[in-house]
Amino acid sequence: MNKIITISREFGSGGRELGRKLANHLDIPYYDQEILAQIAQKTQLAEDYVQKVMDTEAFFHFPITVGRSFNPVRNVVLEQNNSIFIEQHNIITDMAKRSDCVIVGRCSDYILREYNPLRIFVYAAPEHKMERCRRRDEKEAALTDKELKKNISNINQDRARYYKFYTGQEWGNKNNYDICINTSNLSIDHIVKAFSGLIS
Amino acid sequence: MNKIITISREFGSGGRELGRKLANHLDIPYYDQEILAQIAQKTQLAEDYVQKVMDTEAFFHFPITVGRSFNPVRNVVLEQNNSIFIEQHNIITDMAKRSDCVIVGRCSDYILREYNPLRIFVYAAPEHKMERCRRRDEKEAALTDKELKKNISNINQDRARYYKFYTGQEWGNKNNYDICINTSNLSIDHIVKAFSGLIS
Repeated sequence: MNKIITISREFGSGGRELGRKLANHLDIPYYDQEILAQIAQKTQLAEDYVQKVMDTEAFFHFPITVGRSFNPVRNVVLEQNNSIFIEQHNIITDMAKRSDCVIVGRCSDYILREYNPLRIFVYAAPEHKMERCRRRDEKEAALTDKELKKNISNINQDRARYYKFYTGQEWGNKNNYDICINTSNLSIDHIVKAFSGLIS
Repeated sequence: MNKIITISREFGSGGRELGRKLANHLDIPYYDQEILAQIAQKTQLAEDYVQKVMDTEAFFHFPITVGRSFNPVRNVVLEQNNSIFIEQHNIITDMAKRSDCVIVGRCSDYILREYNPLRIFVYAAPEHKMERCRRRDEKEAALTDKELKKNISNINQDRARYYKFYTGQEWGNKNNYDICINTSNLSIDHIVKAFSGLIS
């Protein structure tokens, strides 16, 4: 069975950087935005729409009546959103079958649970996440502390809700992961070096 | 400043084995039962009593009246228990000042917070902890699943209460640690190799 590494991460914690560098270090594929593009292609939905559903919308469109519904519009949206999750499931499973790889986000730890992935959760202290956001994005750098903190918190709440909605599990609960790593006091390069020792 | 590694661990997760092997691998001192022995020596209390206070009793003896109390017996016990914590604090701080080291348990992550230790929390799935307990202890091997599960849970609850009582923090909450490692699917030897890369 291929060696799969899944990375779940708090927004602003450096999880994406960790995933990319780990994949580079191990010389294996890294999947992140590719998943989104492939879902858009397969569902014939716009990439922006897919991103929005995956980020925030899934749970808002769930119909109040399950089964027979008197609201056909709502059902169309539900079917679209479900098709996104089904494609996400298929695409991620195909990636895991193809070769060793690193997959970031998108419930991949749960979707691939039968592949025994190394499940990593990346997190950091609030001030560390704020500092990292400001370093990488001019728009975020212009926000006040309060605004930026709120932005980060909202994105992480959306991730938690999406994960809960599709997996029934609690996002960030350490029992759902093999390693939880706090990037507040450790350099990503050091972590990559250490983790690659766990895999090889 | 010396490099200090503190290990907090769920009972049955292999945290002590991880600590000992990590110290061996890095060729630095490992402190665990030594702390207990030194506290007993400095407080002139029996080692068994010190162990009991550290495991379970601290919070039961806290007086209801704070400050002037009409119950001198209770105050003696409180003073004894406080002296245990004060000695624990002094001994652990001395160890951190002396050289690089690995310290297991005893709120060392909190006591040494100004020394920027690498704070590791070791945990595992319930069935994994049961299996490990049975492997290492004949008495535990003879218990039913229900009894053993209850034993493990009680010990972990005591550790959480002791930690909360003296630090005000939540034991096992990932935000209080740099790495949380789940030993259910990873070998201790692999983890040691990886973590030593984080330190050196």
